[in-house]
Amino acid sequence: MDSQPSWSARTLAHFRKGAKLEPFRLLKQDAHNLRHRWVSDWTVFNQLVVASAVYVFFTNILPGITFASDLYVLTGRSWGTIEVVFSTGLCGVIFALFSAQPLTILGVTGPFSVLAENLYELCNDSFKVPFLPVMAWSLIHSAWMHYFLAIFNAHDWTMQYVTDFSADIFSLLNSIIYFHKAAMELKRTHEQMPLDSFLYAMIGAIGTCLVAILLSTATKWKPLFGRIIRMGLSEYAAAISIILFIGIPYIGDLASLDHGRLAVQPSFRPTNPDRDVFFVRFRELPVEWVFIAIIPGAIITILFYFDHEISSIICTVDRYGVKKPGGYAWDIALLGTTTALCGILGIPPANGLLPQAPLHSESLRHWVEDPDIGPESEGALVDGDRGRTGLVPRVYEQRYSHFAQAAMILVFVSPPFQRVLGLTPTSVLAGLFMFMGYQSLSVNPMLQRFFHLLTPPSELPDLPTGVSWRGVHAYTVTQIVVTVAIFTVTLTVAAPGFPLLIIILVPIRLCVMNQFWGRETLRLVDGWACREGKPEDDVPVGGEYREDMGGNGDLEHGGSERAKSQ
Amino acid sequence: MDSQPSWSARTLAHFRKGAKLEPFRLLKQDAHNLRHRWVSDWTVFNQLVVASAVYVFFTNILPGITFASDLYVLTGRSWGTIEVVFSTGLCGVIFALFSAQPLTILGVTGPFSVLAENLYELCNDSFKVPFLPVMAWSLIHSAWMHYFLAIFNAHDWTMQYVTDFSADIFSLLNSIIYFHKAAMELKRTHEQMPLDSFLYAMIGAIGTCLVAILLSTATKWKPLFGRIIRMGLSEYAAAISIILFIGIPYIGDLASLDHGRLAVQPSFRPTNPDRDVFFVRFRELPVEWVFIAIIPGAIITILFYFDHEISSIICTVDRYGVKKPGGYAWDIALLGTTTALCGILGIPPANGLLPQAPLHSESLRHWVEDPDIGPESEGALVDGDRGRTGLVPRVYEQRYSHFAQAAMILVFVSPPFQRVLGLTPTSVLAGLFMFMGYQSLSVNPMLQRFFHLLTPPSELPDLPTGVSWRGVHAYTVTQIVVTVAIFTVTLTVAAPGFPLLIIILVPIRLCVMNQFWGRETLRLVDGWACREGKPEDDVPVGGEYREDMGGNGDLEHGGSERAKSQ
Repeated sequence: MDSQPSWSARTLAHFRKGAKLEPFRLLKQDAHNLRHRWVSDWTVFNQLVVASAVYVFFTNILPGITFASDLYVLTGRSWGTIEVVFSTGLCGVIFALFSAQPLTILGVTGPFSVLAENLYELCNDSFKVPFLPVMAWSLIHSAWMHYFLAIFNAHDWTMQYVTDFSADIFSLLNSIIYFHKAAMELKRTHEQMPLDSFLYAMIGAIGTCLVAILLSTATKWKPLFGRIIRMGLSEYAAAISIILFIGIPYIGDLASLDHGRLAVQPSFRPTNPDRDVFFVRFRELPVEWVFIAIIPGAIITILFYFDHEISSIICTVDRYGVKKPGGYAWDIALLGTTTALCGILGIPPANGLLPQAPLHSESLRHWVEDPDIGPESEGALVDGDRGRTGLVPRVYEQRYSHFAQAAMILVFVSPPFQRVLGLTPTSVLAGLFMFMGYQSLSVNPMLQRFFHLLTPPSELPDLPTGVSWRGVHAYTVTQIVVTVAIFTVTLTVAAPGFPLLIIILVPIRLCVMNQFWGRETLRLVDGWACREGKPEDDVPVGGEYREDMGGNGDLEHGGSERAKSQ
Repeated sequence: MDSQPSWSARTLAHFRKGAKLEPFRLLKQDAHNLRHRWVSDWTVFNQLVVASAVYVFFTNILPGITFASDLYVLTGRSWGTIEVVFSTGLCGVIFALFSAQPLTILGVTGPFSVLAENLYELCNDSFKVPFLPVMAWSLIHSAWMHYFLAIFNAHDWTMQYVTDFSADIFSLLNSIIYFHKAAMELKRTHEQMPLDSFLYAMIGAIGTCLVAILLSTATKWKPLFGRIIRMGLSEYAAAISIILFIGIPYIGDLASLDHGRLAVQPSFRPTNPDRDVFFVRFRELPVEWVFIAIIPGAIITILFYFDHEISSIICTVDRYGVKKPGGYAWDIALLGTTTALCGILGIPPANGLLPQAPLHSESLRHWVEDPDIGPESEGALVDGDRGRTGLVPRVYEQRYSHFAQAAMILVFVSPPFQRVLGLTPTSVLAGLFMFMGYQSLSVNPMLQRFFHLLTPPSELPDLPTGVSWRGVHAYTVTQIVVTVAIFTVTLTVAAPGFPLLIIILVPIRLCVMNQFWGRETLRLVDGWACREGKPEDDVPVGGEYREDMGGNGDLEHGGSERAKSQ
């Protein structure tokens, strides 16, 4: 016990068998699990699986199109609808077939769009280098970094330290990015179109958003219509609203107005007329740029790793009662592969998508009888209107729904379907941005605490001992300030670095914030605080504390309930 | 017992002392009650009274303005904002001072507007006689008919037979008239304005309505803001939304658009430039038209009598715990007087206003301790969030709030305030029409039963024995068909006769519908069915069965609860 091992010996010890950094430890385990579950993933097929596939198809392709419309303008037409749809479909099919855990839906995300747009600006305006080859190399670099993270079991030594603090901020940032994109879309219309077109665009955008919000409440319309219709209206809320507002501009006088519509290609070829095939001649890039591309590659890696892990964690939380083993390391390695593939094809890479991934689980959730109810399923039983005593939640863990939605999306790269996509006015997409921002915001615990900020002290609920509203308010304000600061960075030239800022939040939360807030306060607002000493087990790390976020709309006492259960 | 009295003797018996038709029976009683309460009506004054006055001011003048905008166009500029405001203020002040029961708020109503517009069309297009003198004579005739109804105690032998069946239809008709007026307002903008102005008008109208609806839910926003702010936002929802959307057209590019605005006069004189003073030279009308005016006079009498009685009944239902005696006959006589006065002044007459009258009571409601809780106050205790055991509801029965709101409205006939009213775009008024239609519809029991029509049988709630959903649905469909039929009549040349149709519903309900629907079904959907044999007492007849309508939003099981309580 007295003899101190040398520094190198101590370092090497981390790589020994069974140690945190033992190469391939998680990958081997994941491969083993995957072998044992793969066949059984194709034996479950029923009506709910079909409904889920249709549902995820709509909630995946439509936001994808919205980012496409945005990317189209902000990447100088390097990427458009066809690239985004192609990528979403291709990566989806690959993950449906080969991922360790097939619940995590993939798509081109908002943060990646911001990143890509900023990289395009740097390449095009500042450094005068071609964007797509630089992006291709960035993604190729990103691929080996993904492998590196998978091989050295990054999941075990990173996601454990991610707390609600960072996750809430990441979620709020997503909302703000959505709202900002909607505003930018409308601002563009205002600048480029006559006033009447702009006024209609406002109607189209706000109408799309409000109709979608209204329909999404359909499950609460009881006793209007039957349960099936209410669920249908609610599940297809965004799709119905979008189809409605795609049609409206063809009515009466509106048909004579200029409507900005999605730019699509009438043939299966890249959006940019300068490109002929889906292949980037990345080898022609000057060698110094090959190396410089390591920097955006690292940033993309951080973003993708963080984003995909969070998505996977949230879509397998306890409330879904997932039983089959996942495989975080395997999926990260697979993500690296698809990312490099997308880079070479010259299409934006897809990764784990919020809130689509947990919505996928939600749409597959059902209840089964279980006589031996352990204490861990108690939480699930009080959740939602479908929880009944003696029943436990389960998700149909299969690959059909994931595969079917991705395959349908892939169909939309064909010319006739492209033409259908081309009917979509950009105002409808702005409305969908707002709807998604709203959806994301409405389940963010920060919203409730923000409301508490505006509530007079006499009407605030009681807090556990040792916690003051002063502390809770200060914590909330800190989160909001940090989010706004990071969002401000995304508007500057430093924008591509913003995932780094989110990562930096983790040590700040763990080391700095403990100095200012008491343990009880942090336990209340950031349920994670007391997990640090908990033994690791098979349950996905981070599974519990995210329970509140996966679509459970009732945030009334989310904070205090969480505190009580610990 | 065997001797049959002659027909004339039997008829005369009705007019004997204590009999139903004994002349002046109710009037004498009302005058006696008024003498005893009048002074005490000026001894109650507190913060709630002030808040109520401000609240009623907004909910009274704004809809008044909306009808003004409509009347202005559809009566060939005979009546405009200043006439409506003048009438509302004048009649309000008179009723605040001299009415037997000062809770019933007066204003120019939607049904009267429809009636007046149709009369204008008949006078102007078909018969080429001047509208205002014909209207003046109609109102003068209406006055003596009001006196007649008051003298022969009409309240006792009419309102007793009015059931939910007619009241629901009357309320739905109100909603439809509001929605239709909004649509007509926007249609006019579409026809007369360029497309961009029309598109903005749509935004302004729908925006005004949606913001008002959103704010009106503020009381449920707990824990956001304090209780006072939530109540304020909710109570002033329409006013805040209107002021907001009066301001928006001055922002940015919108300032350059054509906005249709309320037509007002810059001086205290009639809207129509051909008129100099508020006096109609009614004596110059050809004598045959003086007699023909008896027909519209009778129709106006039926409308006003029905409307004012219903308003008075609803604003004094049990849930408000009104204690002082009212005076239906006295108030009808007073209404006749103000109606004739308005006719001679050439302004539209005001009468009891829904939903403003019950909202006035609502805003004055408070809870007092009462040790001897009788069975009759039980209903009040389960109602609303403020009901607590041992407390009974009371309303500050005073004349300050009524007087203050009317006086404030009267101030708005002065030129500087007229100019403020002139800033209001007509699109905002269309939005307010929609909001009022929505408000009126949302508390109509027919809405819930209409939803039940669209619900599959398996999800419908249980019904009491002897009642089938088939019967309930048939009843609902009948109500809807009747309402649509009456509304269709209001669109034809026969429009001024529609109050007659509503009156005809009463005997139809009592004599014909009993043949098709069982007693249990009628008791459930039309709580009145079993009252027929009940002894009359001091409680205003019709007080109980209307309890559900006075702003209580929870209609979930309104029907069955009502059935259970009987």
